[in-house]
Amino acid sequence: MSRWKPDAAGRLTKAALTLFEQQGYDETTVAEIAAEAGLTKRTFFRYFSDKREVLFSGSHELEHRWLEAVAAAPADATPRATIEAGLDAVAEMFVDRHAFARTRARIINPNPELQERELIKLQNLAGAIEDALRERGLSQNAAILASQAGVTVFHVAFARWVEQDDPTAFRRLMDESLEELRSVTAA
Amino acid sequence: MSRWKPDAAGRLTKAALTLFEQQGYDETTVAEIAAEAGLTKRTFFRYFSDKREVLFSGSHELEHRWLEAVAAAPADATPRATIEAGLDAVAEMFVDRHAFARTRARIINPNPELQERELIKLQNLAGAIEDALRERGLSQNAAILASQAGVTVFHVAFARWVEQDDPTAFRRLMDESLEELRSVTAA
Repeated sequence: MSRWKPDAAGRLTKAALTLFEQQGYDETTVAEIAAEAGLTKRTFFRYFSDKREVLFSGSHELEHRWLEAVAAAPADATPRATIEAGLDAVAEMFVDRHAFARTRARIINPNPELQERELIKLQNLAGAIEDALRERGLSQNAAILASQAGVTVFHVAFARWVEQDDPTAFRRLMDESLEELRSVTAA
Repeated sequence: MSRWKPDAAGRLTKAALTLFEQQGYDETTVAEIAAEAGLTKRTFFRYFSDKREVLFSGSHELEHRWLEAVAAAPADATPRATIEAGLDAVAEMFVDRHAFARTRARIINPNPELQERELIKLQNLAGAIEDALRERGLSQNAAILASQAGVTVFHVAFARWVEQDDPTAFRRLMDESLEELRSVTAA
């Protein structure tokens, strides 16, 4: 059977974004998303807990990649080097997702509830990175500030990346944001 | 009449915190808060839109003080100096509020909905600071990163301040956090 319905999650995501853009996020139902994808509601709920999760399902992979990169950094890496290792890993993840990210931003940005969800996901990510940095032996303060710095740089660079046309610019925008953060905190 | 009910907002706040601690935030009603303060529900709603706002009513003053400090900084102040001006102003605001802040933290920290509200208030504050920094002529990137840095330092230092016993430690904890942020972003 599975040969008949390949990439159900991908098709549901594409269908959801199409409908969110066409008729509005609030106006779109799970039944409509499933129908647009040629699948059942039951199949939808196998992949997503609700329609909102279609927009945030990448957050698990994002966290997973970031934490793996932190764990894989050399034992003597500086806090900044561990931040950059995480940014490298997630930039790679997004290389092929520029079109998706732009559409997603057009849906999230005008919707306060979705913006709040985005903020909370980012703070959960920061908490997970903080724990990973503490496991590497960083002090609690250094781990909190480094994780917040990393997530802030990611967030700012991501917003700039979706606003411009070059899909490959994400890593460079991260570098610029990290440099800007370093610059504004310099004595 | 007003001589009979001085500082209604303060009494309502004190009553709310007492009840939130005694019987739980979710279990406490506006009617109970008003009764505990010896006031009416109608009076409560003159000061607060709902019981949650009792915990967040300081955010307007916080933003006001921070933005005034940014506006008053010398024209040639560095981004870091404008961050520090804001931190100075808000540290002063909290000098006499350590006991309140500690009780408030005990109510907010175990409650995900209240934690989310706190995050969103902090991001609104960051947005307001960003606008004020742009009005001073900072580039968009510098304004975003400086406002995020300032709010992150405030947030981290605030969490440390309520966890320890010295009411006067807030400004020092901010300095330490800003220094830590500078340190973790250093090349």
